[in-house]
Amino acid sequence: MAKDINPPRGMRDFLPAEKAKRERVLGIIRDSFASFGFQEVETPALENLDRLTSGQGGDNEKLAYRVMKRGAELDSALENLSGSDSLADLGLRFDLTVPLTRFYATNRSSLPSVFKAIQMGPVWRAERPQKGRYRQFVQCDIDIIGDASVVAEVELITASLAALDSLGLGDAVIRVNHRTLLTELLTGFGVSESGLGKAMIIIDKLDKIEATGVVTELREEFGDEIANKAEKWLASVDTSVIPEVLQDLFGTVAKDRLRFDPTLVRGMGYYTGTIFEIEHPGSGLAIGGGGRYDGMVGRWLGTDVPAVGISLGFDRVVELFEEPAKSSGVVLVLEDGSVAVLTKALAFQKELIAKGMQVRLEVRPKRLNLLLDSMAANGFSQFALVDSATTALDLKPIA
Amino acid sequence: MAKDINPPRGMRDFLPAEKAKRERVLGIIRDSFASFGFQEVETPALENLDRLTSGQGGDNEKLAYRVMKRGAELDSALENLSGSDSLADLGLRFDLTVPLTRFYATNRSSLPSVFKAIQMGPVWRAERPQKGRYRQFVQCDIDIIGDASVVAEVELITASLAALDSLGLGDAVIRVNHRTLLTELLTGFGVSESGLGKAMIIIDKLDKIEATGVVTELREEFGDEIANKAEKWLASVDTSVIPEVLQDLFGTVAKDRLRFDPTLVRGMGYYTGTIFEIEHPGSGLAIGGGGRYDGMVGRWLGTDVPAVGISLGFDRVVELFEEPAKSSGVVLVLEDGSVAVLTKALAFQKELIAKGMQVRLEVRPKRLNLLLDSMAANGFSQFALVDSATTALDLKPIA
Repeated sequence: MAKDINPPRGMRDFLPAEKAKRERVLGIIRDSFASFGFQEVETPALENLDRLTSGQGGDNEKLAYRVMKRGAELDSALENLSGSDSLADLGLRFDLTVPLTRFYATNRSSLPSVFKAIQMGPVWRAERPQKGRYRQFVQCDIDIIGDASVVAEVELITASLAALDSLGLGDAVIRVNHRTLLTELLTGFGVSESGLGKAMIIIDKLDKIEATGVVTELREEFGDEIANKAEKWLASVDTSVIPEVLQDLFGTVAKDRLRFDPTLVRGMGYYTGTIFEIEHPGSGLAIGGGGRYDGMVGRWLGTDVPAVGISLGFDRVVELFEEPAKSSGVVLVLEDGSVAVLTKALAFQKELIAKGMQVRLEVRPKRLNLLLDSMAANGFSQFALVDSATTALDLKPIA
Repeated sequence: MAKDINPPRGMRDFLPAEKAKRERVLGIIRDSFASFGFQEVETPALENLDRLTSGQGGDNEKLAYRVMKRGAELDSALENLSGSDSLADLGLRFDLTVPLTRFYATNRSSLPSVFKAIQMGPVWRAERPQKGRYRQFVQCDIDIIGDASVVAEVELITASLAALDSLGLGDAVIRVNHRTLLTELLTGFGVSESGLGKAMIIIDKLDKIEATGVVTELREEFGDEIANKAEKWLASVDTSVIPEVLQDLFGTVAKDRLRFDPTLVRGMGYYTGTIFEIEHPGSGLAIGGGGRYDGMVGRWLGTDVPAVGISLGFDRVVELFEEPAKSSGVVLVLEDGSVAVLTKALAFQKELIAKGMQVRLEVRPKRLNLLLDSMAANGFSQFALVDSATTALDLKPIA
């Protein structure tokens, strides 16, 4: 009998056309990043659970899939059960940043003193599945570790915009803010240092709950005085004067691709400086983001190392990418599967492949038209019949 | 303080040079498979645990990493604890074959009636780590589902050999056997139907324990008569006469690339017909293998669908692959990180990238030579200094 045969909830199969598109986009991004001298690295999908949940990953730590211990260790953990996390020793990575900082700490002696990394791969989050949000999805990150100067921000932004340009997404714009500006602003409103995190989380909801919602929540949390000041500020946010701390960046990158946004927060607690969010008119959601996280590598190493990164939301970029016409494939239809016909077809196939074509063999079914329709739907545009008497291929378009 | 900062046991970080090599090999294999009309698909890394452990995966099922339930389901499973598997609902795939058959069952209405699949991706096995054996590794599979004829075997072998040829591994040879030959042989020795599996497992150890070991184990398990017959057969295995059931295959594929091996077993219980193993003089271990598994898709669908596949052991292939000379990169060394110099450098970088070069920016450190050494080690072969007065680049080789 047929069984329930879907992929796990919130996860996806990719059929040939979609997979080909994804690989094409991935290749364009990879080549573009590499042209700026970034170097690709890879970390395992799993990390030790205590590292994944050591406070570096913010709210995402709660979403990490836990992998159970095995063998005697599992038996022992079950006997002395103390909370479910004692049963797990590994976790699936929920982003590429925590693994990258671990990678840097592990391998720094083999890396250039300024390390410019590309990482592209799947991450997993046990979130409630919803439209456009999946439990396994791909991130494409570039990070620069070891450069505290604005050169790093400029390179990340230049490379990200170039990658998006290569994908035909030249309308992408990067919103920029700086964590110290947010801190100064909120401190100016009267928010105490211990309240800063909470206040930022509220301002971060601006897109969803708008200014009135933000002011209401600030009022509940911090009282009238702070809320009123915030209300006044939100009513007339000034994006025209670029603050000193961002002037070098705005003085270097093409102005029409950057936008100063004093309300930009970015959720993660680990950001320490410049923060970015990439938007595109074709997408209601951010298609990427990142920022400077100077304290994070130090958590592993014991000595601070400056770091900054940008992550492209691969799935959203794929949705925006419009494919050029497919390369055409050829179907050789064999009269039968006999050794004589097969041998002939293999020789023709070899010849055409050497010319750079994709060539598929199919034994003729009862209804040739059905086969050709299916092949056309799969990106094949020409066919030829092969029987034991064929001496030259008669290639015809699939109607 | 510095913490333990290694990747999880048995798993690997890939540094830039190794990662670049791996991506190159992956690209060559992908393009080669695609040129034969195979189409790439992707399945999630996780599958529902009950599917992964339903008996299709043989011994590997025991090696699947179990992913814990979450939230209320986990709480409930902990309260009513009944064996550790009741705590897990997902598992990491241990091969690409079980997920492919699930994928086919899920998506068959959208696939051609003969489905020729490429799958390349990581799999996970909780094995004892040892030299050359990892807990996360990559497989590159091609499979044909829906074709019971020898055409499928011929295409798989032709495409696999072409991929290996493209990697410069033209010395690879495929050993071939057929499960019905093994069954007939063992039945002829007097092994009963229920003993066939056990007898095959013993013969499969031939490489490790040699003929005397195999005969000893057969004697212990099946007695003198069967062991003596096996001993006689092993002493004079006849590889010269190709059996009827393999004659079409051997009549079609270049003879110097195939070798009939009556002792080839392949571990997995699910094989039903032709079985393959790929060897190369540069590797003591098989670099790939596969076979026909006509019963497996039917386990999901309820109706049998013929299927056959070959898997390349990606890590072993990468070890054998000898890289061509690296493409050269350029380092632009900025006198300082000022806006003026940076702007100039970005313009030069853009120009060189447009010519197809990889161009990295570095702010001049105190010791230029150390930087250049490090860049040379990372595949960069030229550099130029950029200051605010530079009007044209003076590219020099990195000594």
